[in-house]
Amino acid sequence: MIIGMLNAAAAGNCVSKEDFTSALPELRLGLLNAQFDLASADFPVVVIIAGDDRVGANALVNRLNEWLDSRYLTTQVFSEVGEEARQRPDAWRLWTSLPPKGRMALWVGGLMRMVRAHLDGEVDRTEVDRWAKHLRSTQRMLLADGALLLKYYLHTPAATQRRRMKRAKRSGDEAWRYDERDWTMAKSLDQAIPTIEMVLADTSVSGAPWTIIEGTDARYRDLSVARSILGSLQTRLQGLPSAAAPTPSEFFVDPDQQATVLAHVDLSRTQGAKRYRRLLEDLQARLHLLADEARRRDVATVLAFEGWDAAGKGGAIRRLTAALEAGDYRVHAVAAPTEEERRYHYLWRFWRDVPRDGRIAIYDRTWYGRVLVERVEGFATPAEWQRGFDEILDFEQQLVEHGTYLAKFWIHISAEEQLARFGAREETSYKRHKITEEDYRNREKWDAYVQAVDQMVIRTSTVGAPWHIISGNDKRNARVEVLAHVVDGLEQRLG
Amino acid sequence: MIIGMLNAAAAGNCVSKEDFTSALPELRLGLLNAQFDLASADFPVVVIIAGDDRVGANALVNRLNEWLDSRYLTTQVFSEVGEEARQRPDAWRLWTSLPPKGRMALWVGGLMRMVRAHLDGEVDRTEVDRWAKHLRSTQRMLLADGALLLKYYLHTPAATQRRRMKRAKRSGDEAWRYDERDWTMAKSLDQAIPTIEMVLADTSVSGAPWTIIEGTDARYRDLSVARSILGSLQTRLQGLPSAAAPTPSEFFVDPDQQATVLAHVDLSRTQGAKRYRRLLEDLQARLHLLADEARRRDVATVLAFEGWDAAGKGGAIRRLTAALEAGDYRVHAVAAPTEEERRYHYLWRFWRDVPRDGRIAIYDRTWYGRVLVERVEGFATPAEWQRGFDEILDFEQQLVEHGTYLAKFWIHISAEEQLARFGAREETSYKRHKITEEDYRNREKWDAYVQAVDQMVIRTSTVGAPWHIISGNDKRNARVEVLAHVVDGLEQRLG
Repeated sequence: MIIGMLNAAAAGNCVSKEDFTSALPELRLGLLNAQFDLASADFPVVVIIAGDDRVGANALVNRLNEWLDSRYLTTQVFSEVGEEARQRPDAWRLWTSLPPKGRMALWVGGLMRMVRAHLDGEVDRTEVDRWAKHLRSTQRMLLADGALLLKYYLHTPAATQRRRMKRAKRSGDEAWRYDERDWTMAKSLDQAIPTIEMVLADTSVSGAPWTIIEGTDARYRDLSVARSILGSLQTRLQGLPSAAAPTPSEFFVDPDQQATVLAHVDLSRTQGAKRYRRLLEDLQARLHLLADEARRRDVATVLAFEGWDAAGKGGAIRRLTAALEAGDYRVHAVAAPTEEERRYHYLWRFWRDVPRDGRIAIYDRTWYGRVLVERVEGFATPAEWQRGFDEILDFEQQLVEHGTYLAKFWIHISAEEQLARFGAREETSYKRHKITEEDYRNREKWDAYVQAVDQMVIRTSTVGAPWHIISGNDKRNARVEVLAHVVDGLEQRLG
Repeated sequence: MIIGMLNAAAAGNCVSKEDFTSALPELRLGLLNAQFDLASADFPVVVIIAGDDRVGANALVNRLNEWLDSRYLTTQVFSEVGEEARQRPDAWRLWTSLPPKGRMALWVGGLMRMVRAHLDGEVDRTEVDRWAKHLRSTQRMLLADGALLLKYYLHTPAATQRRRMKRAKRSGDEAWRYDERDWTMAKSLDQAIPTIEMVLADTSVSGAPWTIIEGTDARYRDLSVARSILGSLQTRLQGLPSAAAPTPSEFFVDPDQQATVLAHVDLSRTQGAKRYRRLLEDLQARLHLLADEARRRDVATVLAFEGWDAAGKGGAIRRLTAALEAGDYRVHAVAAPTEEERRYHYLWRFWRDVPRDGRIAIYDRTWYGRVLVERVEGFATPAEWQRGFDEILDFEQQLVEHGTYLAKFWIHISAEEQLARFGAREETSYKRHKITEEDYRNREKWDAYVQAVDQMVIRTSTVGAPWHIISGNDKRNARVEVLAHVVDGLEQRLG
């Protein structure tokens, strides 16, 4: 399962009518109260809504206008650039739409216009870069000045959008909502995703990341955005500095009800012993040739492994290295930082080990520790792990721009499978050292890790560096899946 | 006098041998003590030295190595990219050269290599942008992690460099220090300045601005950099957050001894009445035609006026507007923000008044209030006015990128002339309201304003938006100079 930022968010969340109805009174009262408190606070709130689901975004905006007190709210739609705005620098529209302190503004659109213009060749990459740079600096100015910026990107898969439109057309019901633009979007969305992800990454700043909202279910969409606005606003009104506040997505529906990336992994996949040996043999042979070519063509490779304790990272890595020349690769087993490593920025030790051209670095646990164990265990402050997402994206972007082939793996197993493996390890004398009391304690935080993994995958899956989620309950299956991804990826990279 | 970032720094500072010798013992003791304290502190220090004066930068680095305790200092020269580094992403060299917490590193070079490569056409603008973007994000990561980053750009005018080399060649003394590279630099420096200024602006981040050091006098150069390092380090060791700390340039030699941009203005220039009328007539006629063409060609104009109280801004502006069509321009008199304006980011009201294409906005006092009156009077916190420089650069860059002709004027008069004008105003009934007790009080802060103006001009003079420093003791001269600059600038802009 290859995961990009956007399809990671398409986890299939929905909210039943009963849950929705029963959540409403408290939510709406909360929103009105928070707005009332905001009126005398000394910061403005800007809620930015963008997305590939135009009709959904419209419906969401209407809903927010219904739930919030419109006296303290202005809605600004940035779809068409009017005459007045075209005659001034781009950002003029934003500045003149800013809410004053104590007020809230809802900004809709704008982002997709740039995506579309770039895809249509009207706007080149340099111009997109410039536009994004000014958007980032404007956001930084507003944040430094105290503004609360909440950014939601509404994603509904193209197939869902098409299905929805066809149904509307058939029934005649609400068919008027959709027009040519929506059919075009549904048609071209899949090809647009790399550009959308690039623009989302380029317009993200520390303190104001994009939160990706799944748009398939209207109740989930409206409820999660409204809850996120309310939660972020309440936190801020309580005086928490925005850097230390929970991210907007943490205010979504009850975590237990939240569908996650991991919930979708089909853990039943297995490989029979015979087929496994054949596949292994074949994949390793291909990998050997590819690594050879990569060395000759000076293409570096970075393979990043994360996963549950006892998920089988080591076994999968050994099946990779068995196919490689000893001089070509290094495996970096990443444990808690040493006393020396702690004296540097946490990315320092990973930079240190970046492979030279033509070589392979395999990280057994990685820089993602910042947003996994350090987050869940509280070793990093919220401000630290939250800016970690951007720092990691920047690090990986530099690898990719240099020409490195980078792949990231999360090996997934069920909690039951993990328990069974712990038990087995205790019985195998040479593996007994691998299991400690702490491993059992960590299991209590399983749900917290599931949430952290979910956010990690959504925030850091990029076109150049996607996450591969591996179905690992069957070790043979995990090994073959990993090998197949590396072989495919390297083949693509080498053209 | 048109002022760019770099030639603004060429103010002619020098330190006598006696002053230098007597300053040394305390300075060196201070450096060693600060380094000792740093050893047990939890942040690293990176001192970055770049510049167009290679030999000067070398001498400076040698000096710092002599004054600092080399056990706690590493020096890394980034001139040539070695084999190891070429095979990895650019930033690998930086990351692997990072000092641990408690240590200091001196990084030399790198910046000019990129300038050179861009000028030679080896590296295009997109690549420079990408390089600068990663440099910015790396700096932000290190700053967020607590690092102290001090960046010095050493500038010695090309003529001075040439003179120095010729003298060395003639006398044979130290001629070995100079080679082909230095002659090439001296030859091409003037043409390279726009690129250097662009790269300096693009690699500047909030919390780590470039400090431009005048390299003509070696004693001034070494003393000011060492004092700045010491001052910044001591402030940081005292636990002040870096955002609120004084900027490195504030630790230079005694402000009274510091040569400033304003000290160089020739205030003796005058215009006879007859010649003035002729020039005025001629310039206004040309301006009228140019404004006409600008309107037709949709080129907007922004003219920003700053200067001492009673410097004659109003008079100069009236001589401009007298040449314009009433519908083409607006004059925005900028006073202390109103209650309403205070509810927005300080740039909001300036964005609001940005002219549409073909029109002219004249600001009588400007967004520079942030780094002038608000700084000197303490209305803005150090963190606020310090990030103001970057915010202003970004704002102006957007205007320039949009195609706007932007010119900035500081009308300079002497303190004596100001006093005389205050007196005259009190005697002229219709000007009496223009003079208050506060005006006299502000005079006490003359020196603080001189420093603020100096820093403002050095930090915000860019190729697209230079400062014009106007000699204003003679009102007629000021008006003619302003008009001439606007006419020249618009002519250039309209090609």
